[in-house]
Amino acid sequence: MLEFIDRHRDQYITWLQDICRQPSVAAQNRGMTETASLVENIMRDLGAETKQVETSGYPVVCGTFQKEKKKSLLFYNHYDVQPEDPIELWESPPFAAEIRDGRIYARGVADNKGNLMARLAAVHAYRHVRGELPLQVKFVVEGEEEIGSVHLEEFADRHQDWLQADGCIWEFGYKNADGRPQVSLGVKGMCYVELVCRGANTDLHSANAAIIENPAWRLIWALSTLKTPDEKIQIAGFYDKVAPLTAEDINVLENMIYSEESTLAKLGLRSFLLNLTGLPLKEKLIFQPTCTICGLESGYTGEGSKTVLPSVARAKIDFRLVPNQDPHEIHSLLRKHLDQHGFSDIEMIPYALEHPARTEIVNPLAVSVLETTKQIYGMEPTVMPMSPGTGPMYVLCQRLGIPAVSVGVGNFASNNHAPNENILLEDYVQGIKHIAAIMDDFAKRGNSQ
Amino acid sequence: MLEFIDRHRDQYITWLQDICRQPSVAAQNRGMTETASLVENIMRDLGAETKQVETSGYPVVCGTFQKEKKKSLLFYNHYDVQPEDPIELWESPPFAAEIRDGRIYARGVADNKGNLMARLAAVHAYRHVRGELPLQVKFVVEGEEEIGSVHLEEFADRHQDWLQADGCIWEFGYKNADGRPQVSLGVKGMCYVELVCRGANTDLHSANAAIIENPAWRLIWALSTLKTPDEKIQIAGFYDKVAPLTAEDINVLENMIYSEESTLAKLGLRSFLLNLTGLPLKEKLIFQPTCTICGLESGYTGEGSKTVLPSVARAKIDFRLVPNQDPHEIHSLLRKHLDQHGFSDIEMIPYALEHPARTEIVNPLAVSVLETTKQIYGMEPTVMPMSPGTGPMYVLCQRLGIPAVSVGVGNFASNNHAPNENILLEDYVQGIKHIAAIMDDFAKRGNSQ
Repeated sequence: MLEFIDRHRDQYITWLQDICRQPSVAAQNRGMTETASLVENIMRDLGAETKQVETSGYPVVCGTFQKEKKKSLLFYNHYDVQPEDPIELWESPPFAAEIRDGRIYARGVADNKGNLMARLAAVHAYRHVRGELPLQVKFVVEGEEEIGSVHLEEFADRHQDWLQADGCIWEFGYKNADGRPQVSLGVKGMCYVELVCRGANTDLHSANAAIIENPAWRLIWALSTLKTPDEKIQIAGFYDKVAPLTAEDINVLENMIYSEESTLAKLGLRSFLLNLTGLPLKEKLIFQPTCTICGLESGYTGEGSKTVLPSVARAKIDFRLVPNQDPHEIHSLLRKHLDQHGFSDIEMIPYALEHPARTEIVNPLAVSVLETTKQIYGMEPTVMPMSPGTGPMYVLCQRLGIPAVSVGVGNFASNNHAPNENILLEDYVQGIKHIAAIMDDFAKRGNSQ
Repeated sequence: MLEFIDRHRDQYITWLQDICRQPSVAAQNRGMTETASLVENIMRDLGAETKQVETSGYPVVCGTFQKEKKKSLLFYNHYDVQPEDPIELWESPPFAAEIRDGRIYARGVADNKGNLMARLAAVHAYRHVRGELPLQVKFVVEGEEEIGSVHLEEFADRHQDWLQADGCIWEFGYKNADGRPQVSLGVKGMCYVELVCRGANTDLHSANAAIIENPAWRLIWALSTLKTPDEKIQIAGFYDKVAPLTAEDINVLENMIYSEESTLAKLGLRSFLLNLTGLPLKEKLIFQPTCTICGLESGYTGEGSKTVLPSVARAKIDFRLVPNQDPHEIHSLLRKHLDQHGFSDIEMIPYALEHPARTEIVNPLAVSVLETTKQIYGMEPTVMPMSPGTGPMYVLCQRLGIPAVSVGVGNFASNNHAPNENILLEDYVQGIKHIAAIMDDFAKRGNSQ
């Protein structure tokens, strides 16, 4: 099988270039229909039963291979990509899929078309070498991941029966700076809100600030009640449902590799938050919820000075949540906190409410992925008990009882969402082999359900 | 004299229209040379000895009438205007100087060409009726008031001898909502700084916020140490030099008319800051220094949500200062405060450092302006011991020992800096009469120096 994949390497790279050359920017509605059809056609050509499921947004492309098999593995991917701005910083056109120095450069090649094509190529190789797949394989390829998976819950609600599977390989995965593959077993949740504080009905000359309330000051005072400089979130009840770490969690954390020095050097920093290092640093990254100001805006923000008393002040805040925090409950606690601190006038606009999700390291799918990583990459992977990021894993998997594990073909310098997005061709080929090995191994393991 | 002015009313209005039709937008370098020459020519035609004094920016137009007279009165005005944006909200073209319903509409007609022309018209009338002015009159007409009078201090430094005068009529003045003229006897000072807080060398995915410092949070915490919600500024030593109110100050405040209800209604507010009303409200407006957030910016400020950990956060802050606060000292105290609170990394960019300035109500110039206001307008003026705004009064006047009083032809709805800027023709004509009366009265009063 591995030899077959090596022999078809150029073909699989061509497949990847072809799909990368088709722009699919969800935020700008560019090429979305074309890409959905392209994905569907590729899957159909590989022998899948396919369907484009319409949603209120872009369609979800679904494909089923060998539905007669009882045991099943789901792949979750997305065909949409981020906008390519700032385009002037790209060294080759974002949709040219140019190959240079063993890398393929394209918007979406790391996030997420490289992973999608590696998985489809693995299916192709497996069927050619063995005649058939060892289990049922289902693909869910959505078109709105980069704009918040706005209709994925709607899709999952309507297709619960079809979605049922013994495990799901989540969309992404990266190699660390030291070339070690990272396997991640969950995602943090999210409560993203915009706070809006209003003053007079128009901006005023700042001389008036002596006697007219300044919404920027009120917002500052409100925000300063949310978190103290020791990073403790001050919202009553915020930490109540945070699951305590188990001995197994600590064990996984201890084995998790996080390259502190190279990260600091790359970011031009002298230390991490609160001077953390080692285990406490990793624990904070993986298992602690956050409260992050993602955006602040009020009054005059141009060059130089303008003496203005703003009429409105805005802050965008994300809370990353850990098991078993509930985003809806956190949203309510925040409202209550603001009310109790005298900020009931501050408006809250919710943008994203997502549950955290985790799969235990002892789950058969996790074991299968970890074992095959060792086989294919010849080294122990780094296990992230959860990714510090967020995705719709809960709505698609955990709430339906499906374990999910995240592994893929990106690397620490893949520049996701940034100019010169790329993956290593070698990682792509290894990724194809890994997926083939996972299908093989997982088919033989005890069912987790 | 008053009759002469009434008879020449149309001629003076035409003069004003002519100068308003000449755009002079300093921020965009539009028509600046032309307007400086126009002002110089008008003064020369009226019999002044004139000069355009070059600075590193736009020239200051100077004119002297009857320099043989010992007693002298200085007029400070400016020929530059604000940009006319948003132009689509103007009901007639901003530089058409159209007359409708007893008002003349033009960019700059209230700020500051109406005042400049009223003063020049008064000189014209006085000389025609009486043959000569009763004192020496000097005009300083700068071209950079709307961009912060950046070179006025340089000009004043180099021309101290020429500037010396027994008093100065400052550029602006307004009628209140009830039609009562306002005389103001000073300006607040200013310390305007931008605070810049930096984190990693690039914006990051906000998942990293668990372990990477967020400059937006640091800025919030720093700002929250500057002022508490009771509006007390927490910088050590900030209030030390604030001059205590005298019995005369309180008396002036008590007589000062401030239309609370109409102001609140216009701004869509239910109450003033801290629910202040009456004397404490007026005291805060006039005699209290302020600390105002004029601008806030960090991270993502567009529509919807983006999960970003910002690399930089900025706040623009103005402190309005009262006698005898020194803007340079306040700047140092702020630096010290930030350092002592653990924010020595926060950069401070100073944009404006201006001293406050006041003239006592018993000063002969103030007495002269107030007495003649009663004569011309037939009512008691409202006296503002200081304007809550700021201007370069200290560098041009008080530091050279020149008292300054502010009075003019605008009104509460003149829309300075906004679309449909206007003055009432009646106010313009009254303003000409008032300036003539001030020259007459002040020439006879005891010299303040």
